Amino acid sequence: MFAIWNHKDAAHISRFALLNLQHRGQQGAGISVFDTETSEWSIHKKLGLVNDVFKTNMTMDLLKGNSALAGVHYSSTGYFQDTNGIDPIKYTFIDQSFSICFDGNITNAMSIRRELEKEGTIFFSHSDTELFAHLLRQSQAENMIKKIKDVCRRIEGGYSVVILAEDGIYAFVDPAGLRPLTVGQMNNHNDSYLIASESCVLDSIGAHFVYEMTAGEIIHIDQTGYTLDSHQKSTQLSMVESMEYIYFARPDSTICGVNVYKARKSLGRYLAKEDDITEGDIVMGVPNSSLIAASGYAEEKGLPYDLGLVKNQYIGRTFIEPTQELRELGVKNKLSVISESVKDKVIILIDDSIVRGTTSKQIVQLLIEAGAKEVHLRISSPPILFPNYYGIDMSTSKELIASKFSLEEMADYIGCATLKFLSIDALKEAIALHNPHMSLSLSIFNGDYHAGLGDYKQLFEEQLTSLQLSYLN
Amino acid sequence: MFAIWNHKDAAHISRFALLNLQHRGQQGAGISVFDTETSEWSIHKKLGLVNDVFKTNMTMDLLKGNSALAGVHYSSTGYFQDTNGIDPIKYTFIDQSFSICFDGNITNAMSIRRELEKEGTIFFSHSDTELFAHLLRQSQAENMIKKIKDVCRRIEGGYSVVILAEDGIYAFVDPAGLRPLTVGQMNNHNDSYLIASESCVLDSIGAHFVYEMTAGEIIHIDQTGYTLDSHQKSTQLSMVESMEYIYFARPDSTICGVNVYKARKSLGRYLAKEDDITEGDIVMGVPNSSLIAASGYAEEKGLPYDLGLVKNQYIGRTFIEPTQELRELGVKNKLSVISESVKDKVIILIDDSIVRGTTSKQIVQLLIEAGAKEVHLRISSPPILFPNYYGIDMSTSKELIASKFSLEEMADYIGCATLKFLSIDALKEAIALHNPHMSLSLSIFNGDYHAGLGDYKQLFEEQLTSLQLSYLN
Amino acid sequence: MFAIWNHKDAAHISRFALLNLQHRGQQGAGISVFDTETSEWSIHKKLGLVNDVFKTNMTMDLLKGNSALAGVHYSSTGYFQDTNGIDPIKYTFIDQSFSICFDGNITNAMSIRRELEKEGTIFFSHSDTELFAHLLRQSQAENMIKKIKDVCRRIEGGYSVVILAEDGIYAFVDPAGLRPLTVGQMNNHNDSYLIASESCVLDSIGAHFVYEMTAGEIIHIDQTGYTLDSHQKSTQLSMVESMEYIYFARPDSTICGVNVYKARKSLGRYLAKEDDITEGDIVMGVPNSSLIAASGYAEEKGLPYDLGLVKNQYIGRTFIEPTQELRELGVKNKLSVISESVKDKVIILIDDSIVRGTTSKQIVQLLIEAGAKEVHLRISSPPILFPNYYGIDMSTSKELIASKFSLEEMADYIGCATLKFLSIDALKEAIALHNPHMSLSLSIFNGDYHAGLGDYKQLFEEQLTSLQLSYLN
Amino acid sequence: MFAIWNHKDAAHISRFALLNLQHRGQQGAGISVFDTETSEWSIHKKLGLVNDVFKTNMTMDLLKGNSALAGVHYSSTGYFQDTNGIDPIKYTFIDQSFSICFDGNITNAMSIRRELEKEGTIFFSHSDTELFAHLLRQSQAENMIKKIKDVCRRIEGGYSVVILAEDGIYAFVDPAGLRPLTVGQMNNHNDSYLIASESCVLDSIGAHFVYEMTAGEIIHIDQTGYTLDSHQKSTQLSMVESMEYIYFARPDSTICGVNVYKARKSLGRYLAKEDDITEGDIVMGVPNSSLIAASGYAEEKGLPYDLGLVKNQYIGRTFIEPTQELRELGVKNKLSVISESVKDKVIILIDDSIVRGTTSKQIVQLLIEAGAKEVHLRISSPPILFPNYYGIDMSTSKELIASKFSLEEMADYIGCATLKFLSIDALKEAIALHNPHMSLSLSIFNGDYHAGLGDYKQLFEEQLTSLQLSYLN
Repeated sequence: MFAIWNHKDAAHISRFALLNLQHRGQQGAGISVFDTETSEWSIHKKLGLVNDVFKTNMTMDLLKGNSALAGVHYSSTGYFQDTNGIDPIKYTFIDQSFSICFDGNITNAMSIRRELEKEGTIFFSHSDTELFAHLLRQSQAENMIKKIKDVCRRIEGGYSVVILAEDGIYAFVDPAGLRPLTVGQMNNHNDSYLIASESCVLDSIGAHFVYEMTAGEIIHIDQTGYTLDSHQKSTQLSMVESMEYIYFARPDSTICGVNVYKARKSLGRYLAKEDDITEGDIVMGVPNSSLIAASGYAEEKGLPYDLGLVKNQYIGRTFIEPTQELRELGVKNKLSVISESVKDKVIILIDDSIVRGTTSKQIVQLLIEAGAKEVHLRISSPPILFPNYYGIDMSTSKELIASKFSLEEMADYIGCATLKFLSIDALKEAIALHNPHMSLSLSIFNGDYHAGLGDYKQLFEEQLTSLQLSYLN
Repeated sequence: MFAIWNHKDAAHISRFALLNLQHRGQQGAGISVFDTETSEWSIHKKLGLVNDVFKTNMTMDLLKGNSALAGVHYSSTGYFQDTNGIDPIKYTFIDQSFSICFDGNITNAMSIRRELEKEGTIFFSHSDTELFAHLLRQSQAENMIKKIKDVCRRIEGGYSVVILAEDGIYAFVDPAGLRPLTVGQMNNHNDSYLIASESCVLDSIGAHFVYEMTAGEIIHIDQTGYTLDSHQKSTQLSMVESMEYIYFARPDSTICGVNVYKARKSLGRYLAKEDDITEGDIVMGVPNSSLIAASGYAEEKGLPYDLGLVKNQYIGRTFIEPTQELRELGVKNKLSVISESVKDKVIILIDDSIVRGTTSKQIVQLLIEAGAKEVHLRISSPPILFPNYYGIDMSTSKELIASKFSLEEMADYIGCATLKFLSIDALKEAIALHNPHMSLSLSIFNGDYHAGLGDYKQLFEEQLTSLQLSYLN
Repeated sequence: MFAIWNHKDAAHISRFALLNLQHRGQQGAGISVFDTETSEWSIHKKLGLVNDVFKTNMTMDLLKGNSALAGVHYSSTGYFQDTNGIDPIKYTFIDQSFSICFDGNITNAMSIRRELEKEGTIFFSHSDTELFAHLLRQSQAENMIKKIKDVCRRIEGGYSVVILAEDGIYAFVDPAGLRPLTVGQMNNHNDSYLIASESCVLDSIGAHFVYEMTAGEIIHIDQTGYTLDSHQKSTQLSMVESMEYIYFARPDSTICGVNVYKARKSLGRYLAKEDDITEGDIVMGVPNSSLIAASGYAEEKGLPYDLGLVKNQYIGRTFIEPTQELRELGVKNKLSVISESVKDKVIILIDDSIVRGTTSKQIVQLLIEAGAKEVHLRISSPPILFPNYYGIDMSTSKELIASKFSLEEMADYIGCATLKFLSIDALKEAIALHNPHMSLSLSIFNGDYHAGLGDYKQLFEEQLTSLQLSYLN
Repeated sequence: MFAIWNHKDAAHISRFALLNLQHRGQQGAGISVFDTETSEWSIHKKLGLVNDVFKTNMTMDLLKGNSALAGVHYSSTGYFQDTNGIDPIKYTFIDQSFSICFDGNITNAMSIRRELEKEGTIFFSHSDTELFAHLLRQSQAENMIKKIKDVCRRIEGGYSVVILAEDGIYAFVDPAGLRPLTVGQMNNHNDSYLIASESCVLDSIGAHFVYEMTAGEIIHIDQTGYTLDSHQKSTQLSMVESMEYIYFARPDSTICGVNVYKARKSLGRYLAKEDDITEGDIVMGVPNSSLIAASGYAEEKGLPYDLGLVKNQYIGRTFIEPTQELRELGVKNKLSVISESVKDKVIILIDDSIVRGTTSKQIVQLLIEAGAKEVHLRISSPPILFPNYYGIDMSTSKELIASKFSLEEMADYIGCATLKFLSIDALKEAIALHNPHMSLSLSIFNGDYHAGLGDYKQLFEEQLTSLQLSYLN
């Protein structure tokens, strides 16, 4: 998500911002623009990558205005082709208009929705963004800040929300601060402020850092600057989603004072420290997300780090191949092995996480086929045992391999010589190294759903009994 | 270019092959298919990336047949939107049909074209592929191999050509063997042979290496295997285009017995050997093409190698921004610097080559802005002084910075502390290390256009006088 | 609008129906389909003609199901490109789903909308269809029929509405019956019933007439047949919109027992009867809507009827020409004159109505330029003095030429020798001839807005004072 | 075909011209433009109707220039989707460029093509237009006029060709003048001349008639006017294709001095004169092409003429329906019957021609189902016994019903009470009435292929033996 206020190139700046946030969602993108002079709105959004959605100058020319709100879209559900649900959603009312973007997951969305529908509310999409819109409009509070407080009292989960209104930008984050938002200012336009999901955006649009929102905060931005408020009584330490550091955020972003590049280096180093392996000719990372952790590991261990796997940057979207034989080729084409660099070597392969284990299995197989002597798989995060209910797209617990198998069973399934994960303590320490005044949300590793389980409570408790939780002891 | 004979999934296999050859041309792609059972042809080609051109199962389903010819398209000229000129070009005659793909550049194309037009020949595109088609059809020789020999006698330059005919695949390479073609066989289909521009294709489609064509060879492939012939009297050592090793080919390809990954490592090592610099906190490569040379350099020098620049994989095609301010942002968005890893450091930056120098200038500026103390730029190839007339897309000599400026002037323009290139001798040695029985085409470094200058002769001689050739002494 | 229940080819049948209702709206089209067996919904709608919206078998194949609701779209307002507002609109609720189509105009829509928004209701389009959806959902009545009654109590205007629900089709018409709906049954599928805006659909899909809804009726259709109810206490005679007979409906439709072809013939005959002109070599109609009235006029007068104007069937949508000179050619290209048939003749030209008078002016000019001696313009309806608030797309009163000018001024403006309209009494008689038991809605001719003015009341009264109403006396 | 020289709105004028020539080809359209000031060419062509091909101002804006050549496309063959073959075809040579449009059929095209291919000529399409291009370029004559003469000596058949060259427009017609071209001048631009396939274009673009080309003429047009030449030695009377008058041309066109509207009226009158039927309540024409003949017939007989069939103007292109039941509905939807006007009547139905008889059969059935008492079918042309080899799209002789069946058998197949055709003599007389100094090409009625049979000779002679030629005696 990205929003900017009071800049003549608002739409173009937003397009650049989205290109730098593309890793947060590849299924769709949109920009809505408001012009404070003409009071006119425009919007363009579609399924596809940012570059496909905003392809021509003609499209950009339609987005006239000096303020904008933009988002990339992903969806874990079957509703991914529901164009109405792509952010931002723009609402036109008789008295005013606003557009709205949402990141995260509302755990009690379904019960609220059911309640609202019973009273006659009509939903046009499956998006939680729309839920916010209905709650905001139904609140009879006298201004936007108070309406936001009304809404936050009613919802549970992990979220950050940005609203482009006709009198400025409003944004707010959940009570745990799972997904902080970064506030910036344009370098050459002092009276133009912006807000973004990740700080990597700042550099790329010629802006600098101003403030990072924390747990439960509400912000209002206009040309005069920004005003803070909060929807919770006491100030709380942010508990940032740990997956942001592990693989989700871009390495040139800084979250809660912790630079992601540095965090990943440290994760690699701690992984090495906890690892008593003595073999290993070479350390390799699964491209591209695990390269930094791999180089941290190699540095710590004093082993040579090399490129052995190359990601085919042109594969993009997976094509549904008609036969099994072709499907297998499809998998192979995502990554190529440089045989010359792996042949006859004992390889320590670093990956950032294991979800279902199928990709790891394929990569190990590729290396073995290319002549690697042995592959030791090391994961720069703890085993994922629990589903993510706070908006990081991840499989359900049924598919999480670590919740079903022991370490040995997993290594066996994947086909690696040995397998090792980072410990939860090491994860905490590695991050704390860079900022001791913050906390990590570890729900997927330890099941502590501190921001509430909402409608998922029963489901979660049912699954709990069948989990293989040996790693936690 | 890629062609396969006698495989039921010919079109799907070709699509995979093209995805692995995409780096050789990003402007267009095409697949033509022939079915030996029904004798029916089909073709689909368009401007765009492979993934956009072959987007749906519907498109693939139309390409029915057990043999295929496929190509990716690039064009250095203004004709890039001439769809007729995208390879493969399919020709339908009363007596037979064939489709044809071409790689390289015919240096005397313009004079032949002028001659043919005078006799009434009509050209439908600006493509050299079409020139081959006309010459082949106008040859009154009795069979395809003899027609090919007729054609090769008439043309000059660097080229490789693949023809899908109704009785098999025909292919041939220029007398110098600037661009060898690789012959492969499908692993699970012994009677299915294929030919490809680069060997990296083999693995990705489940095939293995069989033969690599050399200077002046003609090949005919069908289900029984392949037959070789030659269009020149004496056998000559191949003189492979050196840019293939330096930056063009994929690291997992092997050309003329030299693996590209290994070649680049060696180039980096030789660059380090020739370099007497004593400073340097960290070695970085310009992503993605220079990462391997950078790691070779770092290993040789014993300096830490790190990722400091990240390529934005979603930028793709450059959008024409309306204002200068936005255009500058556009440049910035292609690469991001991880400030934390460069701040206050003396950086040795490795790039594979310098053409106009503008990109180098921008990258150095990015690093300095991010806090680098000093940037020492090292190039893993010699200075490019001469235009490439043999089909590698490169600027005209007027734009080649090394042909106008001295080393100091260049460093000054780019903004780096010091600048150094690999020597021609080191380049030759680094490659010879892996296969002493081959030769490199070095025309862009030393002006030796061994495969003929054709229509460019006068132009080249005029330019020669104004070149700054101090590097050659 | 069209809906069918319990037919395996529901979508295909609907497409045919829409092709025969295309004259009722050319801006967009849509079909929503429900499958009673799988309980799955699908929908496809877009701006454009039916043939463009449903262009491929692929599109049709997605519309799987045995019941369907379909509509064509027109809009007099600036919102015509609001795709969300194209009918049918499909709503998905937690407990059920329905899709809905609407024809007509709700005169108090704006006040209801304002009221609902105040309570927090969010509108996604400017369509009155959506208003019905919100009112239906907010009604707490226990079933659909009772909800419909709730809604009808709250709204004013002229309308007919069709809803495809999971337990059958629901439809209802306004208290005046301005736009009756026709119920039919498939010839070869006894248990498949349907409903349509015009009876001309029946023949074209292989169905026969069953029932025509009258003022205030509600109907429920399923495989067992249909059940009637009413949302008003006493039964009222339908007051059909007179413009349906004059120009809107297709000649092969029958509305309220009056066949449109016959009605138009009679209008022509009555026009002739009231006309004491003695000159006239030839009678011509403006194609295509006035050809029948022209032949009725010719028959009554005993004058030769001939084709002199040919409509260019390929012009379609008007292209916005860049210069005045080209714009004038654009107008000329819609109709061509066959000069040979008009040269040196005194022409009696029949048109069905005059709105702004500009088209009449152009046609008369075309005839004069082609050599016609004199053009006498005769209109087969009374002068239009008042805007249509009941859903027939027509100009605002400001643009209605008859509300500003006297007969002589109009003739002068148009450039015809003489001009004459049908009287209101003759209009009533001509229709009554075919069915004495019905009534006509004459609001645009006499200002009698019997179905309520709603939010337009003030506007109407303001305009009233400035009207030129000599024709009414 | 249409071409204009020296007009600033050349492309826009051409678009209007094409809209008025759309009836001559509905499969594709194209405009090529040349700018005499910049010497730049542009072209846009595509499959589809004129309105779809030239849809946006953006497309039109690309067609910059003051001269243009435009064409509509039809094809009777399987090659209709061969985009390369859509006219105009634009050729770029080293020394010059031209674009070319062709109408008609070259009967010896296949033998010439075979000959050219043998010498090495490559064809890019199946279009005869391309044949002209190759022959023109291969002619070594010194100027365009002489080259055209060379080409015409070599080809046989019926044709008219227009070439837009950089020094003006060239056009020529076949030796028989089967398809004369009309030369016009813009009303407000004296130095802007144009050429068109039909004179109906003139009015619609604000131009007037200047000259009509006759048999064997060549014309050159530029801003100074036009110059005539001829490719045959002696002047010959034009023999205009009779189908132009019968159904192909637009009624507001005049060909060889005969207005098509008047010609059709006369055909109807002669049909009535030769018809001794005494019954008949009403005369109806099959819309739209037979309405004029029907009114001529009605006038001559003194019978009432009425509209009973309405063409659905929105059906357009036929959709391929998945089931037989739906396919039958498809047919029904092209024409609707106004039951009220046919019920219990004896109908004399006029159609312009019978090819395969299937449409006639369907129409008669529609009328019978709608309650007609009897249908007497009258055809305003003689029976079609022979294929058209001169470029009017028509079935092969195998499918021509009149060449297989006797009159009674046909009536029986069609289901009409009686069937009668116009005699060949009456056809000749009806046209001669309007211009005695011309002649008609009657090949499809009497087998006199006066412009040569070329490659069709053997085929024709084989078929001749099996024909049912009773009508000719």
